[in-house]
Amino acid sequence: MKSNLLLDQTNEYLASLDYPVSPELLYRPIEYTLEAGGKRLRPLFVLMSYGLFADDYKVAMPCAAAIEVFHNFTLLHDDIMDNAPLRRGRPTVWNRWGENVAILSGDAMIISSYSLLAKAPSHLLQRIMECFNRVAVQVCEGQQYDMDFESQAVVSEEEYIKMIALKTSVLFEGAIEIGAILGGADERNIALLREFALEFGLAFQLQDDLLDSYGDSRLGKSVGGDILEGKKTYLMISALNAASEDDAVQLGSIYRDESLSAEQKIARTLAIYDRYEVKSRTEQEINRRFAKALAALAKVEGKSEELAELRGFVESLMNRDK
Amino acid sequence: MKSNLLLDQTNEYLASLDYPVSPELLYRPIEYTLEAGGKRLRPLFVLMSYGLFADDYKVAMPCAAAIEVFHNFTLLHDDIMDNAPLRRGRPTVWNRWGENVAILSGDAMIISSYSLLAKAPSHLLQRIMECFNRVAVQVCEGQQYDMDFESQAVVSEEEYIKMIALKTSVLFEGAIEIGAILGGADERNIALLREFALEFGLAFQLQDDLLDSYGDSRLGKSVGGDILEGKKTYLMISALNAASEDDAVQLGSIYRDESLSAEQKIARTLAIYDRYEVKSRTEQEINRRFAKALAALAKVEGKSEELAELRGFVESLMNRDK
Repeated sequence: MKSNLLLDQTNEYLASLDYPVSPELLYRPIEYTLEAGGKRLRPLFVLMSYGLFADDYKVAMPCAAAIEVFHNFTLLHDDIMDNAPLRRGRPTVWNRWGENVAILSGDAMIISSYSLLAKAPSHLLQRIMECFNRVAVQVCEGQQYDMDFESQAVVSEEEYIKMIALKTSVLFEGAIEIGAILGGADERNIALLREFALEFGLAFQLQDDLLDSYGDSRLGKSVGGDILEGKKTYLMISALNAASEDDAVQLGSIYRDESLSAEQKIARTLAIYDRYEVKSRTEQEINRRFAKALAALAKVEGKSEELAELRGFVESLMNRDK
Repeated sequence: MKSNLLLDQTNEYLASLDYPVSPELLYRPIEYTLEAGGKRLRPLFVLMSYGLFADDYKVAMPCAAAIEVFHNFTLLHDDIMDNAPLRRGRPTVWNRWGENVAILSGDAMIISSYSLLAKAPSHLLQRIMECFNRVAVQVCEGQQYDMDFESQAVVSEEEYIKMIALKTSVLFEGAIEIGAILGGADERNIALLREFALEFGLAFQLQDDLLDSYGDSRLGKSVGGDILEGKKTYLMISALNAASEDDAVQLGSIYRDESLSAEQKIARTLAIYDRYEVKSRTEQEINRRFAKALAALAKVEGKSEELAELRGFVESLMNRDK
């Protein structure tokens, strides 16, 4: 099935989840979070992976929703930890209702994701639970490493890749794996699809880093946010690795220099990035990861139309800056 | 099996849970929380309920641990929300490691409880998940109502009973139900055991309220904490319901009166409680609930020695002030 039709069905299903009216401060923040939309990549991966092997998408929908609810739960709690005031242009839950409400409604939200997961066909539930639990705790590990990095003087490229793999890729991997399990895929196909999702997830997250510094601001995303926050992104880390001692010291201090405007901070940082070809090096790494993803996908034996649709879908995601 | 032997086995099993070394700030707080001990009532209820119908306790141990890990997760997050500095004589997780660590390690902890739950025999997993998810979200509802009450002018006795049922009783109910499902109990026995656990949970929580104001301070519990915090406990609510307008105004203001010492605040509040026989009324309600619990238990058809052990166990819990 076409990804845009699956997206409509996913949004319909998510909107049909019937949370209780009371206690209001427990359930309204969950609906508020789910209403905010987003690309719904993870449930789409569940459904598209399922569709490679089977036809009745209704079977996979509760698990697809479970992954999306879980993902949104992580955003809700991450926003408290990151002190983020806005998400998708609206106040975050802690900002609108307070921290206690954000903590507790997040807790109810992760339980809700497990309630959806429990609707999986019972003969597959244990395997699906094991997969879901494995990746869910890895996402927490990724968030913890991300927070650890803030106070860590040096972060290696390897450590960074491990962190984004945990924080982003593994949930794509779990989504793809659960879809494949539900569809009845064999172990070989499941392993290939997991590799595909992991590598795609890395390419996708690295591209996120790239777009934050080199994206087109006309697309509504503010450019340079990571630079202004002094975030240790892939770009910053590979610049620091390649830079002279002087440039490295500069890179670590520009964002804190109160005599500079935001534009100046961004321009000076990008000038150093350019000196070390950070953009093209990041693009190379993205392309390498994405090629690995596609190579794994090419070996999957599934319904050919759905394979082509999945391939086209991830290609369109990688071309989102154009 | 005797409850003290089951307690030893539970503590052994919990101590054997092998959390990863890294990231340290994600996993150490989980171990720290589980090490703190406690009465382990909920896992014991899983095991003792299971033991009414079956013999191989190993089957029920992962689910027993799942309930205990979940319970400790709720304490970890509640302590952030309640701004509680200490639990069981040690700094709470947020107090020792900061709020972000407490939020995220709590999240990893609830996932850990689901990992344990997933070890249930696969043909029972769906039913157990449905039960666990139902009571887990009810516990969140109870915590939200409890927080709502702080800013609510009047709380009725009915509202209060509903709140403590959600916050405390339903997890006993879930523990008993999951044990019975694992043991292969029939629907009639499961329904009776659920009623037993719900009523026992209410009696237990009401007794907690009573002990906080009338307990024996030699047992290490500080007495009068609820009064000093101005908490709307069962005692306070039934006093407010019975009191004259004058006494009701006093009850609502004594704890905030900065001219009074802690001892004076407690003594004056207890004097009003005495005027309206709050102690004996609470004791009557506890006895009524506990009698209902025992009546339900008496109708359960299970192994007679284990039924007697369970009955003796809850009786000893209700006599803990003596």
